[in-house]
Amino acid sequence: MNDSTDPYGIREGEVAVELPKAFDASLYFIGRIRTPWRRREDCPKNARESDAICTIDLDPLFAPGLKGVETCTHVAVLYWMDQARRDLILQKPRHYGEQRGTFALRSPARPNPIALSVARLIRIEGSRLEVVGLDCLDGTPLLDIKPYFASTDAVADAVVGWHKARKS
Amino acid sequence: MNDSTDPYGIREGEVAVELPKAFDASLYFIGRIRTPWRRREDCPKNARESDAICTIDLDPLFAPGLKGVETCTHVAVLYWMDQARRDLILQKPRHYGEQRGTFALRSPARPNPIALSVARLIRIEGSRLEVVGLDCLDGTPLLDIKPYFASTDAVADAVVGWHKARKS
Repeated sequence: MNDSTDPYGIREGEVAVELPKAFDASLYFIGRIRTPWRRREDCPKNARESDAICTIDLDPLFAPGLKGVETCTHVAVLYWMDQARRDLILQKPRHYGEQRGTFALRSPARPNPIALSVARLIRIEGSRLEVVGLDCLDGTPLLDIKPYFASTDAVADAVVGWHKARKS
Repeated sequence: MNDSTDPYGIREGEVAVELPKAFDASLYFIGRIRTPWRRREDCPKNARESDAICTIDLDPLFAPGLKGVETCTHVAVLYWMDQARRDLILQKPRHYGEQRGTFALRSPARPNPIALSVARLIRIEGSRLEVVGLDCLDGTPLLDIKPYFASTDAVADAVVGWHKARKS
């Protein structure tokens, strides 16, 4: 990859590693996510910044798997950030300006670019779900939908220290 | 696969689909999770059932990516349920007894068997993290570690209706 022409090239403060030569497991794209955002720079910085209703188009093959999902107020959505580079290990996001490790960031650039968003479920019709709380590009591949259990998934007093320090 | 000898064969109330012929993306195993549980039947049913300290052994290649993670009280851990079958679309977990869709369950059996757990971070030493809140088999492959932001990840009043109805 030629960094001088790569729109996702390395920026100052970013460090890449040489990734392993082989993959270890494989994924199916089980649907597509439809959002109002066509360019990276249009996406909200995080999902709570937008009330836009997004659509999850599950492949109809998997539609029977939605039985019972209609009883959930929220779902965890896993999707594939297919445009992200995978070798960045230290990053310096523009809006933070400090170098941090990939695993301390929610950046799409990571060895396995799987994104996680907690979304509020509005409606299910057939194999289509309407949700609020996604922040990805239109057309993003869907990997999984899980019921969100407050008992195990919600930790209201969790703190990301570097982020908190930044704001105070 | 011969179901008569498959320990993970189809049970009554379960329905499988024919999966797509080809995969769409691939994963790196970036570490291994060490837990006290060596057999499926020994694992806690969910992560809040156990206070066991589990160890995440990140591949040292990726250790610089932990910079800043030490400031987090909690992390979202994604891992690969490598022993689960991927074609079940309707399931009837033994401890619930009702048939539900895969996407309404946290069962490891799903088209992309990526598990999500929210874990409390105890300590980081080098490329090793000690956490509480995992429920997987010893040796489970690690896919990702993310900082857990209460602002976007915690929904304390979320409800999984089928589960709530069951308990009341």
